Amino acid sequence: MDYSELTSQIFKKESFLCIGLDSDINKIPSFLLEHEDPIFEFNKQIIDSTHDLAVAYKPNTAFYESNGSKGWLSLEKTVAHIKNNYPDIFLIADAKRGDIGNTSHEYAKAFFQTMNFDAITVAPYMGSDSVKPFLSFKDKWVIILALTSNEGSNDFQLNTLSENNEFLFEKVISTARFWGDEKNTMFVVGATKSDYLKEIRKIAPNHFLLIPGVGAQGGSLTEVAKNGINNNCGLLVNSSREIIYSSQNRDFAIKARIKSREIKEEMKLILKQLL
Amino acid sequence: MDYSELTSQIFKKESFLCIGLDSDINKIPSFLLEHEDPIFEFNKQIIDSTHDLAVAYKPNTAFYESNGSKGWLSLEKTVAHIKNNYPDIFLIADAKRGDIGNTSHEYAKAFFQTMNFDAITVAPYMGSDSVKPFLSFKDKWVIILALTSNEGSNDFQLNTLSENNEFLFEKVISTARFWGDEKNTMFVVGATKSDYLKEIRKIAPNHFLLIPGVGAQGGSLTEVAKNGINNNCGLLVNSSREIIYSSQNRDFAIKARIKSREIKEEMKLILKQLL
Repeated sequence: MDYSELTSQIFKKESFLCIGLDSDINKIPSFLLEHEDPIFEFNKQIIDSTHDLAVAYKPNTAFYESNGSKGWLSLEKTVAHIKNNYPDIFLIADAKRGDIGNTSHEYAKAFFQTMNFDAITVAPYMGSDSVKPFLSFKDKWVIILALTSNEGSNDFQLNTLSENNEFLFEKVISTARFWGDEKNTMFVVGATKSDYLKEIRKIAPNHFLLIPGVGAQGGSLTEVAKNGINNNCGLLVNSSREIIYSSQNRDFAIKARIKSREIKEEMKLILKQLL
Repeated sequence: MDYSELTSQIFKKESFLCIGLDSDINKIPSFLLEHEDPIFEFNKQIIDSTHDLAVAYKPNTAFYESNGSKGWLSLEKTVAHIKNNYPDIFLIADAKRGDIGNTSHEYAKAFFQTMNFDAITVAPYMGSDSVKPFLSFKDKWVIILALTSNEGSNDFQLNTLSENNEFLFEKVISTARFWGDEKNTMFVVGATKSDYLKEIRKIAPNHFLLIPGVGAQGGSLTEVAKNGINNNCGLLVNSSREIIYSSQNRDFAIKARIKSREIKEEMKLILKQLL
């Protein structure tokens, strides 16, 4: 999916919600365990119930890999279900990959060809040649970790560099925005770090930002929108646990829809102010 | 495998060779494509032919993921083959993972429990809580990216910090060595960066270092050993392409053995100087 299609989906759906499919076999409703592939069944019901309220889904690979090749198969089935039924969805692999060039190219094949993801999150630590192989795929995106929502973001991302006293995460954004452009590159900024969004918008005014950490991790949608939105919206705000684990009963997909709609209605109001 | 067992294997085998199983379906001998699982067959023959010359194997997950769930199955079979037949082998998942705490814990389960790896490579960008979940597994290791062998290592790893003018990669080592200790933490330092090894040894004298980049990427074993070895050896030197793609013919496993023995003989001489 390209930039203009993504933007148009956001204004059409009046939503910039990304639903994180962090589908944990120990947290899904227990009656689903009777199914041959409980994780896929869980995802399918969540997706079927929320696809018109969200512009994006974001399975985190860790929750699939923990079940080994069976988990990887659940992931493939989830991707196929979305791509076959909901072509208006932007699909993100939250994989945080990154390796030397020929190896990153294998990751790009895994997520962009073997599976048909639109985007993949990548870690910037290994630099340009670890990210660029992902950028050679048409209409595919990299989403580069910049300032993450967790406490450990203080360890390195918020260190300042001697060169010009900028934070490491600012250097990542100011450097990596030239590896591709705003049509194929986004940055991850945690919702818990919304104070930094104004500065980030000075460095990358037009790029999309993927914002995790709203909900369970404590970030505020209003704060994020106030400091981070641009004329094309430029935001994908992710919520995972707060939506997908809304209920442990047979109504889990309906409850996920109710929670998603609640967030979508907030987003609708925010988007109206742009028009 | 714990620190003392790993060290004793190195001196028993007179080798600190790690063989990288970057097994690419497009690069393995074409006659193997007749097999039901060509990648596993390739790995099996390489492993059976070299296990007494190497102390470690290191499959890079990218080359398995590019084949999807089938590739992940080839990886599981490779792990099982090594663990069932060669319990003296230290097995590293070159996965470069790292995420917020509960998610990193899922990765740890994937590689330490679902599969029985001894160690996993992790990216440090997200800080302490992205790495610590891996350290809660007994006799398992994290191998933290510090200074990598690729050109992109210049982009951020070699930036200096305003705090005390140290390189980012030095800050990573000086910070992360306190997350665990030398019994469960190693650092990745590319063989092409052997000039920095003396400085690194001042910060982390006792930690094992995993050194990729000897061979195809141009690093020198002699230089690495001169600057990086410690009294317990403290090095695992990886070679991938140079060994596993020694031949495209039916003798590929024998040729891999010959190349491995050549490196092992060099390592034997280096180790002798320690005794």
